[in-house]
Amino acid sequence: MSVDQQKAAIAILGASGYTGADLVRLLLRHPQVDLRVLTADRHAGKPLDDVFPHLGGLDLPSLVRIDEVDWSALGFVFCALPHGTTQDIIASLPPHLRIVDLSADFRLRDPQTYAEWYGHEHRAIGLQAVAVYGLTELNRAAVRGARLVANPGCYPTAALLATVPLVKRGLIAVDPIIMDAKSGVSGAGRSLKDANLFCEAAEGVHAYGVGRHRHMPEIEQELSVAAGQPVRISFTPHLLPMNRGELITTYVRLIDGASADDLRTALMEAYLGEPFIRVLPTGQSPSTRHVRGSNNCWLGVVPDRRDRSAIVISAIDNLVKGSSGQAIHNMNLMMGWDECLGLDQIALFP
Amino acid sequence: MSVDQQKAAIAILGASGYTGADLVRLLLRHPQVDLRVLTADRHAGKPLDDVFPHLGGLDLPSLVRIDEVDWSALGFVFCALPHGTTQDIIASLPPHLRIVDLSADFRLRDPQTYAEWYGHEHRAIGLQAVAVYGLTELNRAAVRGARLVANPGCYPTAALLATVPLVKRGLIAVDPIIMDAKSGVSGAGRSLKDANLFCEAAEGVHAYGVGRHRHMPEIEQELSVAAGQPVRISFTPHLLPMNRGELITTYVRLIDGASADDLRTALMEAYLGEPFIRVLPTGQSPSTRHVRGSNNCWLGVVPDRRDRSAIVISAIDNLVKGSSGQAIHNMNLMMGWDECLGLDQIALFP
Amino acid sequence: MSVDQQKAAIAILGASGYTGADLVRLLLRHPQVDLRVLTADRHAGKPLDDVFPHLGGLDLPSLVRIDEVDWSALGFVFCALPHGTTQDIIASLPPHLRIVDLSADFRLRDPQTYAEWYGHEHRAIGLQAVAVYGLTELNRAAVRGARLVANPGCYPTAALLATVPLVKRGLIAVDPIIMDAKSGVSGAGRSLKDANLFCEAAEGVHAYGVGRHRHMPEIEQELSVAAGQPVRISFTPHLLPMNRGELITTYVRLIDGASADDLRTALMEAYLGEPFIRVLPTGQSPSTRHVRGSNNCWLGVVPDRRDRSAIVISAIDNLVKGSSGQAIHNMNLMMGWDECLGLDQIALFP
Amino acid sequence: MSVDQQKAAIAILGASGYTGADLVRLLLRHPQVDLRVLTADRHAGKPLDDVFPHLGGLDLPSLVRIDEVDWSALGFVFCALPHGTTQDIIASLPPHLRIVDLSADFRLRDPQTYAEWYGHEHRAIGLQAVAVYGLTELNRAAVRGARLVANPGCYPTAALLATVPLVKRGLIAVDPIIMDAKSGVSGAGRSLKDANLFCEAAEGVHAYGVGRHRHMPEIEQELSVAAGQPVRISFTPHLLPMNRGELITTYVRLIDGASADDLRTALMEAYLGEPFIRVLPTGQSPSTRHVRGSNNCWLGVVPDRRDRSAIVISAIDNLVKGSSGQAIHNMNLMMGWDECLGLDQIALFP
Repeated sequence: MSVDQQKAAIAILGASGYTGADLVRLLLRHPQVDLRVLTADRHAGKPLDDVFPHLGGLDLPSLVRIDEVDWSALGFVFCALPHGTTQDIIASLPPHLRIVDLSADFRLRDPQTYAEWYGHEHRAIGLQAVAVYGLTELNRAAVRGARLVANPGCYPTAALLATVPLVKRGLIAVDPIIMDAKSGVSGAGRSLKDANLFCEAAEGVHAYGVGRHRHMPEIEQELSVAAGQPVRISFTPHLLPMNRGELITTYVRLIDGASADDLRTALMEAYLGEPFIRVLPTGQSPSTRHVRGSNNCWLGVVPDRRDRSAIVISAIDNLVKGSSGQAIHNMNLMMGWDECLGLDQIALFP
Repeated sequence: MSVDQQKAAIAILGASGYTGADLVRLLLRHPQVDLRVLTADRHAGKPLDDVFPHLGGLDLPSLVRIDEVDWSALGFVFCALPHGTTQDIIASLPPHLRIVDLSADFRLRDPQTYAEWYGHEHRAIGLQAVAVYGLTELNRAAVRGARLVANPGCYPTAALLATVPLVKRGLIAVDPIIMDAKSGVSGAGRSLKDANLFCEAAEGVHAYGVGRHRHMPEIEQELSVAAGQPVRISFTPHLLPMNRGELITTYVRLIDGASADDLRTALMEAYLGEPFIRVLPTGQSPSTRHVRGSNNCWLGVVPDRRDRSAIVISAIDNLVKGSSGQAIHNMNLMMGWDECLGLDQIALFP
Repeated sequence: MSVDQQKAAIAILGASGYTGADLVRLLLRHPQVDLRVLTADRHAGKPLDDVFPHLGGLDLPSLVRIDEVDWSALGFVFCALPHGTTQDIIASLPPHLRIVDLSADFRLRDPQTYAEWYGHEHRAIGLQAVAVYGLTELNRAAVRGARLVANPGCYPTAALLATVPLVKRGLIAVDPIIMDAKSGVSGAGRSLKDANLFCEAAEGVHAYGVGRHRHMPEIEQELSVAAGQPVRISFTPHLLPMNRGELITTYVRLIDGASADDLRTALMEAYLGEPFIRVLPTGQSPSTRHVRGSNNCWLGVVPDRRDRSAIVISAIDNLVKGSSGQAIHNMNLMMGWDECLGLDQIALFP
Repeated sequence: MSVDQQKAAIAILGASGYTGADLVRLLLRHPQVDLRVLTADRHAGKPLDDVFPHLGGLDLPSLVRIDEVDWSALGFVFCALPHGTTQDIIASLPPHLRIVDLSADFRLRDPQTYAEWYGHEHRAIGLQAVAVYGLTELNRAAVRGARLVANPGCYPTAALLATVPLVKRGLIAVDPIIMDAKSGVSGAGRSLKDANLFCEAAEGVHAYGVGRHRHMPEIEQELSVAAGQPVRISFTPHLLPMNRGELITTYVRLIDGASADDLRTALMEAYLGEPFIRVLPTGQSPSTRHVRGSNNCWLGVVPDRRDRSAIVISAIDNLVKGSSGQAIHNMNLMMGWDECLGLDQIALFP
């Protein structure tokens, strides 16, 4: 059939993390995708549902090691590997492959900034220079033509969608921009560390990585471009007792004469016609549970009680819009497909 | 376009409960459905997202009162109203409408049993007599030809799928059959009562309705038919601190010579080719989180340590397979469509 | 016995809310207290464990109506009634009674501010004028001599303990002071409303009451006193899926020459010897789960990445330090007892 | 002072697990205890609050290695080490020390049963022979005189308190006894394994260790003694998304002429005057959240709908009555102190 002929053969490198699993969940319902290869070095040889039972009963390829992959049979690759190792693997991929990388390796354009925040020199500087930052709505044209897209971090996605249009139009001061972020535990991945244990994360809240979270330079990089000047933000993430969801409450200062309504109007104009972004009516405030499982980002603007101040709130599902969903959105653009393919899930509530 | 011509115009009566909301979530992605009418008497006049913000930003009809509905324009009705009032409304619907009723009103075939458990005489006994019990996999032929399908309760769905084939084949004794059920809070609906408050339901577990839950006669009715003799079960539901999910652990006694493996084989044969039921490999035990948001029912059989005993475990999402998903499955059969239309969601984990 | 002779006969007015229940939990282990009267108008005549089963099996007086209370037999009253009705009841109490009021009725000193935020004129202005604001550590002397103490709100407790010493010493600018607050659901009380249902509060986060929460003027009132000038803050509360706990992340601007370490030192000096307040070592950030069930307030100061900025984080259990525990602390002072009586619970973790 | 002279110098071996932490929480408020030594080999040299921040700000000894302990200065030891290694360490302790062991090493009296379930020969068979099974209420006299008490497992505590008096009096058949158990995640300890991660345990339920949980032989051992004949039970534990709490729903068959009320009466008589056990009024069913943080065990008996059947439900906090609290109860008896010392915590709800 004609559709089958157009299907792209796809690999997910690093399918044993939550991001990889959500890619599988979404790609299995994507009409143009033939999910051909799943890698997971530690689990090679196992069926995927040994690692993720919820993906059992589907007809999926078993997990293999990366060095077993026959790249010539593939057309597109999602790379969901840990940062650091990613750059070597992507550098070694044959040139016919188009790639969305979900790690942090190609997000920072300045090699020095990368080295400072990740503790080692970048080993694929040439690729880093040509990688396109895949914040889809704000970089659509570049994504379309890219071979390698650096998928944004989950926090930067929610942070930048809420603020870039405001900075670009000069409606808010670039200092202070204070971002108080809240995330569910899946944002930390599936790593075995104390902080991710149920008993350590349930029934409580705390801030972490205060003043030194690696998503900070990524946010600053993009805001600086938007502002045309260096921007430094305050960014404090908090861990919440929930699986999915990310909410960022951003406190901004309005320029003279601007109002919270002006911010709302600016966001509505910036995202007019966008399928996954919704600016809430005045007075409403987004909840992460209303975008759970979907590729949506919901934005709300609320006037602060203090003069010349406003609060912009953004909500996403960190594993979808903040990761796998946005990656698929980028693939759709890169492949020239309808942008929304495979991304029509309505939020699962409750 | 040809598909549009075949689309059925559909109403959901009672769209302001969790069941109604999940019907909307699923039907909006059903290719043959035109979601035309949503009723909610208390909220009539409001857009649906006033009640369910997660359904905002979609193109949905506003909520109306039931007496405002123009039935002639419709072809199919889902009724998600409270039991008791449902029977009067369904009795008043014009005969061209086909109906899946998600309330308890038409599940019990014996009017006396109904009166005993629901505290009043049934007021639509004629309809009760012709209503088809919509446990899809076990009643497919009758569902296909039905005008009115009584969608099973959430607990009965998980309970009966796990045991009817075993009782039918005479592999287990009909006494004792002990069902220990665990449900998330959405199983109690969206009603404002103390027990449903976050602080009353979080961080704890308790049994409720012990010995007198209304799903009990429904389970007994169907098991009695399967056994060809009256069956009386032990059924104890527990409320768990989670949104969705229902797990039933059923303790059964094997007949002479039968083994847990025989039970597993019987279930596999009974559900061969079924798209939504999966019998897990020996030694595996289902988790509700692995079917969350999907129309799947997962079954596991585990040998008990005691002789001649086994444990059968079934897991469903109470709002999907236990309610809205099964209702749509029934509609697909009644309308002669592909059974799986609108029901291809993969479980959302984590 | 001698201790018994010194015991104070005590009433809790409004024992059927979470605050009342936590007063009972704590007072039952208070060596100087004889818990004599529990009122709850709607539940009068019932034993308390009909309302709060966890308080069953203890030897407690049954619930009565307020108009049934024999005030002459009592020495001290905790009032945990809804705001608005509280002022009439307290105004009618005989003068020999000393009172800690846990409602909002006597927290705001300016009758006009009260009227503006609570929607009606205050009806006990004389009492309002003499009520002492019971933020214990910062108002110890006045609390000691008070007849009527207005127990602070939960948010103001965490907010003010973190910032008043900094404002007093002029270490931070009074504008902007941005408070991003996170609370468990018990902070909303036991009221039957949709937002408090398990399914509406679990697995998600959202901001509420943005720009108009009633704890805002209370915080501003006390910060203004500390600063010697009117202070206006930004305050945004968020609802989190947990029972207990409140975390406030406060973003402040340092005055010239001050550092985050200076803030930390100022807090340590201000709370030197305080039994319930702990300033965490540099680089540590408090978690609500580490103060759960205790009367502790933990404070952390973290340098922001931006120049001249710092983040102060405070964590309390909203029902203890933010309500019942602080009320008992105030009673201990008013009665001339050891401050810590009845308040030695260590946090319950996990 | 006279009380201080009577204080016992105490060590907790294995203070870095949840059981050890709850021992610290409770012992710090025990008037006769001087908490002198805390061991944790992996964390030796650190303050305890590096491992458990909620125990910060208290005056506690730092963690040491077991081989650093000066046993001569101690009078009593709690051993909260992993099973297997425990037996060697306890065998090496000097004879003047009295010990409550919270591991599984001395619970099974039959060395062969131990070897079968724990996979190796017992290496301290002499001690195993004299260890007293510390189910306090049912073994008080023996506990009083013991040098070494084997503290029961959490499930056996809840299981046996609910059933031993019924078996002893011959009110129920010994087959079938079907125990469906539900536990919070802290029951699995603080070990770093996938199943204990927040995202793997939240929002779902599943059975685990079906037919092969190590608490099974322990329950059978004690029920067999009570029955005077070998008893084999069905026992299926489930993991629930909560921190603390254990509920066991036990399905029993009544002997001829016995009723559910007879069971209730038998339990009331068996536990008359017991400070920590409460048999609920007819028709009530216990909830784990109502015993959270306390040393209470609550029991309920409910008639089943089926003839000659009943349901007995028991609720405990697995870390208190199911572990640390019961251990302290045992110590109080062994030391000749008031049984309730250090155990008067009222449940923390919500």
